[in-house]
Amino acid sequence: MDAYTELLSFARETQALGEVAGRLGWDQETMMPEGATPQRAEEHAAMAKVLHARHIDPRVGEWLAVAEAKDPVAAANLRHIRRSFERNSKVPADLAAALAKTTSLAHRVWAQARADEDVAAFLPLLEEVVALRIAEAQAVAGDADPYDALLDDYEPEASGAGIAAIFDRMRPRLVALRQAILEKPAPSALSGTFDEDGQLRLSEELARAFGYDTAHGRIDKAVHPFSSGSGLDVRITTRTSLTDPFNCFYSTIHEVGHAAYEQGIDRAHLLTPLGSGVSMGVHESQSRIYENQLGRGRAFTGWLFERMKDTFGDFGIADADAFYATVNRVSDGFIRTEADEVQYNLHIMLRFDLERALISGDLLVRDLEAAWNDRFKSDFGYAVDKPSNGVLQDVHWSEGLFGYFPTYSLGNVYAGCLNSAMRAELSGLDDDLARGDTSRATGWLRENVQQFGGLRTPMDTIAHATGSLPSEEPLLQYLEEKFGRIYQL
Amino acid sequence: MDAYTELLSFARETQALGEVAGRLGWDQETMMPEGATPQRAEEHAAMAKVLHARHIDPRVGEWLAVAEAKDPVAAANLRHIRRSFERNSKVPADLAAALAKTTSLAHRVWAQARADEDVAAFLPLLEEVVALRIAEAQAVAGDADPYDALLDDYEPEASGAGIAAIFDRMRPRLVALRQAILEKPAPSALSGTFDEDGQLRLSEELARAFGYDTAHGRIDKAVHPFSSGSGLDVRITTRTSLTDPFNCFYSTIHEVGHAAYEQGIDRAHLLTPLGSGVSMGVHESQSRIYENQLGRGRAFTGWLFERMKDTFGDFGIADADAFYATVNRVSDGFIRTEADEVQYNLHIMLRFDLERALISGDLLVRDLEAAWNDRFKSDFGYAVDKPSNGVLQDVHWSEGLFGYFPTYSLGNVYAGCLNSAMRAELSGLDDDLARGDTSRATGWLRENVQQFGGLRTPMDTIAHATGSLPSEEPLLQYLEEKFGRIYQL
Repeated sequence: MDAYTELLSFARETQALGEVAGRLGWDQETMMPEGATPQRAEEHAAMAKVLHARHIDPRVGEWLAVAEAKDPVAAANLRHIRRSFERNSKVPADLAAALAKTTSLAHRVWAQARADEDVAAFLPLLEEVVALRIAEAQAVAGDADPYDALLDDYEPEASGAGIAAIFDRMRPRLVALRQAILEKPAPSALSGTFDEDGQLRLSEELARAFGYDTAHGRIDKAVHPFSSGSGLDVRITTRTSLTDPFNCFYSTIHEVGHAAYEQGIDRAHLLTPLGSGVSMGVHESQSRIYENQLGRGRAFTGWLFERMKDTFGDFGIADADAFYATVNRVSDGFIRTEADEVQYNLHIMLRFDLERALISGDLLVRDLEAAWNDRFKSDFGYAVDKPSNGVLQDVHWSEGLFGYFPTYSLGNVYAGCLNSAMRAELSGLDDDLARGDTSRATGWLRENVQQFGGLRTPMDTIAHATGSLPSEEPLLQYLEEKFGRIYQL
Repeated sequence: MDAYTELLSFARETQALGEVAGRLGWDQETMMPEGATPQRAEEHAAMAKVLHARHIDPRVGEWLAVAEAKDPVAAANLRHIRRSFERNSKVPADLAAALAKTTSLAHRVWAQARADEDVAAFLPLLEEVVALRIAEAQAVAGDADPYDALLDDYEPEASGAGIAAIFDRMRPRLVALRQAILEKPAPSALSGTFDEDGQLRLSEELARAFGYDTAHGRIDKAVHPFSSGSGLDVRITTRTSLTDPFNCFYSTIHEVGHAAYEQGIDRAHLLTPLGSGVSMGVHESQSRIYENQLGRGRAFTGWLFERMKDTFGDFGIADADAFYATVNRVSDGFIRTEADEVQYNLHIMLRFDLERALISGDLLVRDLEAAWNDRFKSDFGYAVDKPSNGVLQDVHWSEGLFGYFPTYSLGNVYAGCLNSAMRAELSGLDDDLARGDTSRATGWLRENVQQFGGLRTPMDTIAHATGSLPSEEPLLQYLEEKFGRIYQL
């Protein structure tokens, strides 16, 4: 066997073990008996240790030194393996261990602090997490920007400065759009209750309508919906809320977007480094375009309105236009995950600016809550009322995930670009969507984005699909036009 | 850290990884989408490789060489670790790999051959499996009996000769009992259908009645019921049959017996080599005594009769005595897993004698089917009608499991001993069982057997619980008395 073949075979086993570890996480959120928690922590830790040892295995370095790429697939595989090996090898073992231990502890302390509305109880550990992540970022980045080194884990090629430039152009237009909308009368919200069996049945129908393949996946309930797995076993979860069926339906469609990406990758890449989504941003572009540009569009909501009436009977919304406005209702709220398309990115920009300042040292952890509250007031016009609605609301920082938040908005930006290119190419698409038929849209995304997995870089993936480098302009135009029409701005 | 502490910490991680691998198997039988099969095979293989490497890790040998046991727990842990390390280290790597590959292939070929009723299609691979297992057994056993080396994987301390002596004493009495029973009129069988929701509800009630702890486990459906996992996460499965609710109920009680053993082990042994059942035979003793001596006794079936009437309405059985006879009905049948208490062990003895002869070389694979059919006719009095009812019925040999079958009957023998000792100690137990209250019985088993896990050897486990070394006599007396009364022999 030549070095490349040996290396790929090793990487394939690593990938298979990664799938096992991922499914352990799925099990924990869906199936695990509650009393199993302490044992599960040891199982997770043991798997993480096995995977870490493989990621820095010296044989990988030896194979990389002599492996030759005979084709673009091999070149892409080598690029991914080299990136991961070099990144992981730069982090000293004791730092990696300290990070694993501290984030595991910080996660528990964060959950308790959030429940207790007690920021002070969380800050000492958050300080440790930030210090460790800065140390890690410096070890990886050398002389380069440490934040970029963190970002690189989730969105290769992106830079903090590049994202800041995009966000700085987006923010004033989104703030202005939000203000214009909130001066208008609000569409009616849903009222009444919607039985949970009906929600789950319709949720399954939506998953099928968006092309989710249950021969290679399954749908279960979880407190926080997620998608997990790659290749032939890609599972999604959803949740129900008696008074808010949209939470169920759009969680499902969102997760189907993620899952469709994994399920849509060329099977030739199964269990290789090319066999899963190339970056968080591109992943999120799929979940967002399924959820928003397709799922929350006027055409598809017309079909959904009828299916909801079939399922739940009359629920007090007069017609499909009113339903469309209700689905896309913009209202005040503190919580990122509950935000509408207009306000969502403002939540992200707040987090991005704060975490970048934390990593650069310009902001100290002890000043984080005040900085959060000031910025929130400035963008949203009202004050945070309690920490669980503010600085303690998200899990990410407690787990050491710095550099992750901006990928959500990059996903929205990419989705805007993809939607624009797709609409230009597929005429009459809304006629399909009005019948609940997403196949041409999802087929276009599969053909132009999903199938490539890790073969192309994130930027190349979007550029090849759209014919140009990503820009925030299509997303902003889409939002201004869509909400301008709904709210008659 | 001293060598023992380091070794135990390594063993604990191995144990945790073993739990992960085991749960992967659970997932495959209960949750996995059907299209995931090929990927799952790679995931299993990758986990098996990780575990195998740890089982023969040279550091284990180094730690074992210097580790000191300061107490009985440490001594037992060292005994288990040394046994596993020495056994695995004796098997050459290429032989271990060939066995893994061949049994994986043979398993698929067996399933197809059974579906096709085509013994010849399976025999070439079975020959390879037998040859490889003989080679492995010889590598492990040296000059000792190769069959004992295989048996030792499932029932340490047992020997083929010792089991043969027990079985030779049991067989004539069981054949005679069977013949006497079949000369009598058969009790009525169940007729009609029993709705599956009702079966699952009552099955859950039975699991609870036998003390199954769902805070540390869960119940799902599977084609072939099983129990899996140790410590804080012990899951069971069951199945339903529209016309045969006993299949569901007694599968559940059987698996609860296995699970209760794992759940009952002293938590101090969690994720150590002492933290799971000590042998297949002792494990089976728990599932059998729950299922048979407790679950199929006159007292408990009286309670079950009422619960079935509550659940399904009248189902044509006149009274509790008639119901007891129906539950314990003895009738002709080819299939081991469907056999009653009287005939079950005859099915095992057949397999034990044949597999021992295969491993010793006294029987050639090409003569196996004829030998099976002759022996079946001799013990049961009628001829095997097709291979799926004969030599192809069980999965075990295709997976290379030689030495496994006798542990089922050892479990029955141990259950007989335990039942006898328990009844002598707990007066009025049947009054409890007649109310559906198993707590004194399961409490006795937990106290006297389950809590010790791997601390005592299998023989010591039974001997400590019963006050004497295991013997087949209590089981035979129990069967002769029970069925003598039901059938008025």
